[in-house]
Amino acid sequence: MIPAELITHKREGQTIPPKDLEAFVQGYVAGTIPDYQMSAFLMAVFFQGMAKEELFSLVEIMISSGQRLDFSHLKPYVADKHSTGGVGDKVSLILAPLLAAAGLAIPMLSGRGLGHTGGTLDKLETIPGFKTTLSLKTFQKQVETCGLAIMGQTEDICPADRKMYALRDVTGTVPSIPLICGSIMSKKIAEGIQGLVIDVKTGNGAFMKTKTQAQELAHWLVKIGKRFGVDTDVVFTSMDQPLGQNAGLWCEVVEAMECLQDNGPADTMEVTYILGAKLLLQAGLVKTIEEGIKQQKDLIASGKAFEKWQSLVEAQGGDVSALDHYKTLHQPRYQEVILAPQGGYIQEMNTYQLGMAAVQLGCGRLQTGDFLDPTAGMTFHHKIGSAVKAGEPLLTCFNSDRTRLELALETLRQTVIIGDEFRNHELILNNE
Amino acid sequence: MIPAELITHKREGQTIPPKDLEAFVQGYVAGTIPDYQMSAFLMAVFFQGMAKEELFSLVEIMISSGQRLDFSHLKPYVADKHSTGGVGDKVSLILAPLLAAAGLAIPMLSGRGLGHTGGTLDKLETIPGFKTTLSLKTFQKQVETCGLAIMGQTEDICPADRKMYALRDVTGTVPSIPLICGSIMSKKIAEGIQGLVIDVKTGNGAFMKTKTQAQELAHWLVKIGKRFGVDTDVVFTSMDQPLGQNAGLWCEVVEAMECLQDNGPADTMEVTYILGAKLLLQAGLVKTIEEGIKQQKDLIASGKAFEKWQSLVEAQGGDVSALDHYKTLHQPRYQEVILAPQGGYIQEMNTYQLGMAAVQLGCGRLQTGDFLDPTAGMTFHHKIGSAVKAGEPLLTCFNSDRTRLELALETLRQTVIIGDEFRNHELILNNE
Repeated sequence: MIPAELITHKREGQTIPPKDLEAFVQGYVAGTIPDYQMSAFLMAVFFQGMAKEELFSLVEIMISSGQRLDFSHLKPYVADKHSTGGVGDKVSLILAPLLAAAGLAIPMLSGRGLGHTGGTLDKLETIPGFKTTLSLKTFQKQVETCGLAIMGQTEDICPADRKMYALRDVTGTVPSIPLICGSIMSKKIAEGIQGLVIDVKTGNGAFMKTKTQAQELAHWLVKIGKRFGVDTDVVFTSMDQPLGQNAGLWCEVVEAMECLQDNGPADTMEVTYILGAKLLLQAGLVKTIEEGIKQQKDLIASGKAFEKWQSLVEAQGGDVSALDHYKTLHQPRYQEVILAPQGGYIQEMNTYQLGMAAVQLGCGRLQTGDFLDPTAGMTFHHKIGSAVKAGEPLLTCFNSDRTRLELALETLRQTVIIGDEFRNHELILNNE
Repeated sequence: MIPAELITHKREGQTIPPKDLEAFVQGYVAGTIPDYQMSAFLMAVFFQGMAKEELFSLVEIMISSGQRLDFSHLKPYVADKHSTGGVGDKVSLILAPLLAAAGLAIPMLSGRGLGHTGGTLDKLETIPGFKTTLSLKTFQKQVETCGLAIMGQTEDICPADRKMYALRDVTGTVPSIPLICGSIMSKKIAEGIQGLVIDVKTGNGAFMKTKTQAQELAHWLVKIGKRFGVDTDVVFTSMDQPLGQNAGLWCEVVEAMECLQDNGPADTMEVTYILGAKLLLQAGLVKTIEEGIKQQKDLIASGKAFEKWQSLVEAQGGDVSALDHYKTLHQPRYQEVILAPQGGYIQEMNTYQLGMAAVQLGCGRLQTGDFLDPTAGMTFHHKIGSAVKAGEPLLTCFNSDRTRLELALETLRQTVIIGDEFRNHELILNNE
């Protein structure tokens, strides 16, 4: 395998034989293939794509670059949920304890905020004491005893993906379907799960702007799942507006806790239930989606889901007593209300801009190493289709840094479009 | 300018604004933009091309990264010749002294062997004592006093191109028309020339396999020349067989000297004359191509061209007395003759393979730092259209390293195809 030739072959649209791809990726992880050859290869993949078997090889190579967890000795169905990323998407925080309460085992490797989207780990870390860095052994043990664990990707899991992802981020090679699929699925498969449900977001706040792109992505995610023996379901949901009533850090944890206590916004619950029902179906615990939804509602109503959440927090070092007065924790020093400039119906929400504003408020990083502000976030008083009067509050943004608040206010201008006609918003999109 | 965004814009087919492109390339030369971002950018350029003004900017930026020579104080027309590379192409060795004898000033920056093609510098360095590394000052002075100088690209000329070229070589991003044009023209324009003629090779031994590719390349070379005030002519010639009777190192210098003494092969002379006539026309020294060819023939017949060659060799430290017995210098220790396996007419010569065999014999580098064998090369006893009998010699290959000779013999199998019908070979291709 001569690296420059392998790059040339990919550039010409050829399929790279598994042995050569393996030597190239392993060489990259080992440091014998330099970044500049990998980045040229990744850009060639962006343009030429990958053949099915080639992508399967890539996933296999990425998994084999690290450790693969094994839960085959466990009785419960071992599953996970993934979202392609959005604004206000706190579903993982709700669904993980909910499914664990239903009897599933959930070994969840999560990520941090990326671009304009929020990150589960960043949100969890606003809980006083909560640790998102565990050893693989502790993680595995906790899944066995508690039924769930949530942490970040470690050096042990898919190091090839870690290194390639970091490179993609700075070389304009992120939005490539085979590379996205390879990255998502290698990590999920390495978790040792049996089943997976993926929330594929589309719309102006998603990475996939169109349904066609989302469908292609889903097609490959399912194909890879099948190939590696992981039962993979996909649900397409809209990211044409933020999910739920809040986007941010602690405020999303609060919303998640309210959901777990049967007091959450309808849209957040709807996405949670449909994703959860898919996994309950996979696990054979229910016979229909409707039954799956009902079971989840019961687990929330009985308080069992919230109890599981409390044990998760406790297991990972979080201060459970702080959860008792969660409404008074992380209070922002500043807040600003955006008022409706005119009356009418909400037509559109520029969700990408809303996400960027959240980052500017302190919920995400503009540069590596940026400080996150746990108090930062925004509350949406209206969503698409809602009737508003001129001067009524549209959204409130808040944080504890005046300069960043001003920056966000600038971005928030005209993110919510009001018009005369009623506009409908479809949350769960047709799977066809 | 955010590097990852600039790469993304190019990936999306956008035109990069001059200021951003300048910051990116200058940052790369200065080391603040890493190789991996430049290589991703180069691959994106391979797929998306460059807009006209963008390419002009790139050329300007590459020139400005180093020094630009100035010969505006000289009376003679200052010109150069460039070839896109071939096998057996020793035209520069003949044309430079021939045009200097005609009264032109020739500041020629040449290259080394690349891939399967030979390099002017490698050939010149087989002359005992000949120096191809001069200071810019010495180079400039020699052009003024001797009328010509030939040396390699220095750190002072287009360092951006040097660095980008080295990266392209190992990242599969060589065959991009804007990048090739930028690389060629930035160096030529930096020579401070008024006129340029480019031998654009096409065929199985050229980098541009088809006439269409060659025409596109030529189109851009001429456009860049015009934009930077360098009168640029293009001649398309065939590289479906090697040029002349020899391909190698010292054997090509010998052929060039025989050409300069009116004893060279017809095809080598034909290419030399047409290229030379274009520059004599540009310089206003002749009125027609025919007159330009005649003037060159006269300069060879009178011995003036060979005298200029001798002064070039002397000026650059070469041993002129060695030239007197050039036929006995660098005698190879080994040689092998390839015989015609059947009678008929030569149909085809696999020129790429022939070039690779020459490299294997020791005329080029398989790896950076490889030793070159001045005695290595091959002689072609027949070319396309020639009638041969079974068992008659087709070509002789020679060098002073048995192992490399064996390697080349393996490559040389079936490089010459013999068939029943007469096959014509067109050397100078129609410019349309």
